[in-house]
Amino acid sequence: MRLSLEHLLHRLQFTQIVFIIRYMADIKRVAVLGSTGSIGRQTLEVISALPHRFSVVGLAAGQNTALLAEQINQFHPRFIYSQDKTPTGARYQSLSLEEMASHPEVDIVVMATSGKWGLKSTLAAIKAGKRIALANKESLVMAGEIITREARQSKAQIIPVDSEHSAIFQCLEGERQKPTKIILTASGGPFRGYSPVQLAKVTPEQALKHPSWRMGQKVTIDSATLMNKGLEVIEARWLFDMPFDNIRILVHPQSIIHSMVEFADGSVKAQLGQPDMRLPIQYALSYPERLANPNLPRLDWENIKELNFEPPDFDSFPCLKLAIEAGKKGGTYPAVLCAADEIAVELFLSKRIKFTDIPRLVGQALEEHKSLAHPTLEEILAADAQTREKVKEMAGDTQ
Amino acid sequence: MRLSLEHLLHRLQFTQIVFIIRYMADIKRVAVLGSTGSIGRQTLEVISALPHRFSVVGLAAGQNTALLAEQINQFHPRFIYSQDKTPTGARYQSLSLEEMASHPEVDIVVMATSGKWGLKSTLAAIKAGKRIALANKESLVMAGEIITREARQSKAQIIPVDSEHSAIFQCLEGERQKPTKIILTASGGPFRGYSPVQLAKVTPEQALKHPSWRMGQKVTIDSATLMNKGLEVIEARWLFDMPFDNIRILVHPQSIIHSMVEFADGSVKAQLGQPDMRLPIQYALSYPERLANPNLPRLDWENIKELNFEPPDFDSFPCLKLAIEAGKKGGTYPAVLCAADEIAVELFLSKRIKFTDIPRLVGQALEEHKSLAHPTLEEILAADAQTREKVKEMAGDTQ
Repeated sequence: MRLSLEHLLHRLQFTQIVFIIRYMADIKRVAVLGSTGSIGRQTLEVISALPHRFSVVGLAAGQNTALLAEQINQFHPRFIYSQDKTPTGARYQSLSLEEMASHPEVDIVVMATSGKWGLKSTLAAIKAGKRIALANKESLVMAGEIITREARQSKAQIIPVDSEHSAIFQCLEGERQKPTKIILTASGGPFRGYSPVQLAKVTPEQALKHPSWRMGQKVTIDSATLMNKGLEVIEARWLFDMPFDNIRILVHPQSIIHSMVEFADGSVKAQLGQPDMRLPIQYALSYPERLANPNLPRLDWENIKELNFEPPDFDSFPCLKLAIEAGKKGGTYPAVLCAADEIAVELFLSKRIKFTDIPRLVGQALEEHKSLAHPTLEEILAADAQTREKVKEMAGDTQ
Repeated sequence: MRLSLEHLLHRLQFTQIVFIIRYMADIKRVAVLGSTGSIGRQTLEVISALPHRFSVVGLAAGQNTALLAEQINQFHPRFIYSQDKTPTGARYQSLSLEEMASHPEVDIVVMATSGKWGLKSTLAAIKAGKRIALANKESLVMAGEIITREARQSKAQIIPVDSEHSAIFQCLEGERQKPTKIILTASGGPFRGYSPVQLAKVTPEQALKHPSWRMGQKVTIDSATLMNKGLEVIEARWLFDMPFDNIRILVHPQSIIHSMVEFADGSVKAQLGQPDMRLPIQYALSYPERLANPNLPRLDWENIKELNFEPPDFDSFPCLKLAIEAGKKGGTYPAVLCAADEIAVELFLSKRIKFTDIPRLVGQALEEHKSLAHPTLEEILAADAQTREKVKEMAGDTQ
């Protein structure tokens, strides 16, 4: 008996037809964890511009329930997670972060939650063999050894979303050999050239004005202390399996060159672009393809007269050295670094400590910590929890 | 009957043993056409540093018989071509350029002859399916259509040696899509910023002092008139199958960024390095591998404070526009461009015409030419010969 297409379609349920159409069109199903944050919102902007290639099947948010409700109305995801009360008024399934990150109907997980909240769901996505567009750098910093080991086993693809690591990833594409050197560029933050006395007087309002990037509050303060660059060094160590001594930092205030790699023959490759997170986000979604997107800005060489470079100022920005040292020592030190920094940044934003107290508190937390070698996830999370308490205590002492 | 290794070796001829050892060690056999010129000499420097990977099996030179004799003594090639009298005192076989370029015992042909002399041997190497490390840009400029068609058929690999095209080639490695734009960087030459009056007074001695690159005389003068950049635009058009309107020129005096490509998503990749031709030469030999070579210089970011950019000055350097127009028109115009420029540069070097007469003579030759569409090799060489005569006549008129 032959079946006409019409007969066939009549026999199928609506969701089955949707499934077939999606399969034929190769539309990738994306879950955005941290959808109301800066990276999450920009991810949804990218997906909106490319509806023939990506659809949002999951949204997970923290406390911004109002924005999450708007996003649900716009994207009609199947899966929802909300840290606060669950928004109502749409048909969807509530899942935990880990369930969403590993759900069989999710192709790509965008990890855009901040801090340690991304760690468990990143691991769940990795164990499920997903493509992970990784914007949450704390996961790799805190548990790089575990994450890279699991990813090797499950063959999960980790595509970095940080502009620097995306640049390195793009420059390594097609190369047969590991680079001999990674050159992470750094804007230097808004206080490049400030004296220690000037830095002590910096207010949260000043620190939140980043000269080139549009980012969340935590990352913006981390960019001002250069802690962000330090975390990126650790992230690069794990993503590209590079010894710390082969990772260099170069201050480049215009943020046009997003990073560089040097090879055995002395050739250097760089990736450049306007400072706009939507480009690395889109690349992590579309890799290995590149998609035309008229919303993405282009470099305008008519108006780029010069690119400048200078060495980083390790003395004025001690967070950089603290991070690299914690990364080199390994164990639970990087988890302590992240936790102490997160609390210190919160205290600074609520004006309870000075800008220069951030490295002081982080340094003290690291100094007093007794690290464990090759820690388990539980040990890492325990070190995190202990450090948070400790730094709050320390800050109480300083007032 | 079992044969011991010793017995086997006794039965083989010496050349057979050499063949087996080379095969086992995967040593690539290189013929250097134009071995006494600047690119040829630097190719031999690279090969000397990597004797476990490359061996010189052929050397071809023009009139510098003394240097050729030295090179023969050092590298013991099997095949020799000398435009002048053949040097004596070594065991080798004399071949024509075309025979050497297509010889079955040659793996890589380095085309480092200047001007139209490379054309026929480039074609011979392509028809034989060799890897061609192409430094002779006139071949592609004059006969890009024929060369690229033949290379598609024979699956010959053309790896560019020009630093700009090598940069583009490196940036495209691993990318699935063609770029949307090629940005050819240009040093701007030694007379960047000169007025027409100043340019008219330029002497050969001044023009031969290139600020960043170590090159032959002809290329150095072409770099000063920007004709070289114009030829590179045509070369890029053929090598990367790009429309002329998607190839931009950006003046970058430090010659650190060797060129860039922009993709559909707005991402830009650049290749950087010290201005040293040995890097692109080595890459063309070792591709897709990169080989460690301590002789190759590395970028020193401690001493690179800024990179500058400006638009090219089409008015003061008319050769640039002449070349791009000839490339766009196609047919035999690019052959006329090359021939007229070669004669004009000779006349300038022998102080028979002014620096500003170079574009004037080239422009006049192009204007008076009647082009043929899709010319054969013979028609291209005829246009070349006629133009050479004509420009000599024209120059006679101006004195």
